[in-house]
Amino acid sequence: MTTVAPHRPGHLMAAEIAEQPAAWRRLLAGIDAAGIDAAADLIRSRAPRTVLFVARGTSDHAALYAKYLVEIRHGLPAGLVSPSTMTAYGARPDLRDVLMIGISQSGGSPDLVRTLEVARAQGALTVAVTNSAGSPLAAAAHAHVDVLAGPERSVAATKSYTAQLLALYLLLERVRGADTSVAAALPDLGDALLARDAEIAALAQRYRFAQRMLTTARGYSYPTAREAALKLMETSYVSAQAFSGADLLHGPLALVDPQVPVFAVVAEGVGGTAMRDVLPRLAERSADVCCVGHPAAVEAAATGFTLPAGAPEVLSPLLEIVPFQLLALHLAVGRGGDPDAPRGLSKITETL
Amino acid sequence: MTTVAPHRPGHLMAAEIAEQPAAWRRLLAGIDAAGIDAAADLIRSRAPRTVLFVARGTSDHAALYAKYLVEIRHGLPAGLVSPSTMTAYGARPDLRDVLMIGISQSGGSPDLVRTLEVARAQGALTVAVTNSAGSPLAAAAHAHVDVLAGPERSVAATKSYTAQLLALYLLLERVRGADTSVAAALPDLGDALLARDAEIAALAQRYRFAQRMLTTARGYSYPTAREAALKLMETSYVSAQAFSGADLLHGPLALVDPQVPVFAVVAEGVGGTAMRDVLPRLAERSADVCCVGHPAAVEAAATGFTLPAGAPEVLSPLLEIVPFQLLALHLAVGRGGDPDAPRGLSKITETL
Repeated sequence: MTTVAPHRPGHLMAAEIAEQPAAWRRLLAGIDAAGIDAAADLIRSRAPRTVLFVARGTSDHAALYAKYLVEIRHGLPAGLVSPSTMTAYGARPDLRDVLMIGISQSGGSPDLVRTLEVARAQGALTVAVTNSAGSPLAAAAHAHVDVLAGPERSVAATKSYTAQLLALYLLLERVRGADTSVAAALPDLGDALLARDAEIAALAQRYRFAQRMLTTARGYSYPTAREAALKLMETSYVSAQAFSGADLLHGPLALVDPQVPVFAVVAEGVGGTAMRDVLPRLAERSADVCCVGHPAAVEAAATGFTLPAGAPEVLSPLLEIVPFQLLALHLAVGRGGDPDAPRGLSKITETL
Repeated sequence: MTTVAPHRPGHLMAAEIAEQPAAWRRLLAGIDAAGIDAAADLIRSRAPRTVLFVARGTSDHAALYAKYLVEIRHGLPAGLVSPSTMTAYGARPDLRDVLMIGISQSGGSPDLVRTLEVARAQGALTVAVTNSAGSPLAAAAHAHVDVLAGPERSVAATKSYTAQLLALYLLLERVRGADTSVAAALPDLGDALLARDAEIAALAQRYRFAQRMLTTARGYSYPTAREAALKLMETSYVSAQAFSGADLLHGPLALVDPQVPVFAVVAEGVGGTAMRDVLPRLAERSADVCCVGHPAAVEAAATGFTLPAGAPEVLSPLLEIVPFQLLALHLAVGRGGDPDAPRGLSKITETL
């Protein structure tokens, strides 16, 4: 006689968060199998003048990360496409000399597939980055990169997000012939982070009754702030809002008071340094700041979580998001929710 | 003997909201004085292949509107630049064949000025759209468009926003030689909207105690949802979050319950039609929806505000935002605040 184990809330999300270092190891060992070198060769041979990204939800934050990579390291103009322009409005832009990268965990959303199809017909070189080699998005593109994260079953995407970041880093760095060996340090750093789950569980107690939250960062870490806010929203139903540190000062700073916790990501490097103007303005408003970042920044804040040293700024987003994934998990479960199946959501979202 | 009148909270914002139709008339009558035709001629002569925008805060929402115009009506790839890539990270992208448009009310934020300077040095054609002809941003660009909104003194930008939308519409339509005479109907429609202030004052009572709000729209109206959320945040300190209707279904839908009011902008046209998939999903979650839009959409919602007919979809954003500006004003004043001087903010925000 067999019994079916009862579903423990959040166990899928917890397992997939924990799988991340293994997923990164798999991708680093399988760059060729993932299709990264083939896609990089194709992109290099076409020498695009502009790079566009199309994605939604969590994948949109991976796209934003890649947009920074393109702007900073490739010196090319980049943009995030509004899919409705091509699907609903029927725009048929001139996309010669354009690389369009579509990013999606499932590779199944019809509006993304349609956008890549139109882009291809309009002259763009198209690359799909998905976690599903057999997906319609992969089929629609000239080249496919498989992020090799393995099946993701929790509705809240975690391992597919960091695998997307790593795949995009490897792809775009290899396009310009850069050495990507520094990424080899990531899996061990990820393991060390995950071993500190109890710190995050304690932190989650502190935010048990928070209804509103702000997240903020600059540069490569800004996508972390965006993804952290989405994770908190979709699992714990808090109104979490993300702002670049600079945009925060252009209006949303008025929101800040001691009742709205602020999570500031302050990694080592240029983006973290650019947050130096933002933190004093938060202090003026008596904000309750939790700093996720390097030791000196964490020490200066009311609360914090220290990120491990050893990753360059450009790879820090893979590590930074992990404490937020764990926070979202603990907060959701602590509030009696089930982050594996948030209300109103299903794993694959089909938008037209 | 003269006495100084005491400051009535929100009187500057109220006056500037009310001035909008007059500002639009001034701009429509002064297209040449605003520098629009000269800038349009210059852009046409250079035939850019890609268009980038740089802006922050409210002006970023005008940039997003213009991005839709470029993508849909010009058939060119477009993007919103992250200023930190050029200012903090020192990126020096290849911007030949690129048009970069910087948008700012004051034209004074150092990071925008620096971004336009770098873009110009990197080969881009640069255009500044400001409300201040003598501003550093105007001086940094090849061409300047003055939105002619007159001095704006309320910290919460209102008339400068709709003047930016109109100036960008006129500029980009004239670049492609289109007839812009349809815009002549806007000022009278704006006057008719403003005459219905009492409807919005009544609506504000309904949201007196709301701490969280969502706004949503698609297509040309999506910038309205973004700007409405910012206006509510910066004046009334509510956690107002904006999502494109499609992105809402990819995660944030979990936030929706009957305690979080949703403002849906459903104008006539493609963007409003694309909201048809979103509204039933909101109903499934028992959302309290206030619809700002065309009569049939408003009739189907719990609460609503009917927009006047007579403007094409592409110009609807100028009208759609007006009820939200009034709502933010009434809500802020009703809560004892002063939207002319929100806590923590000053009129000109200087970010580096």
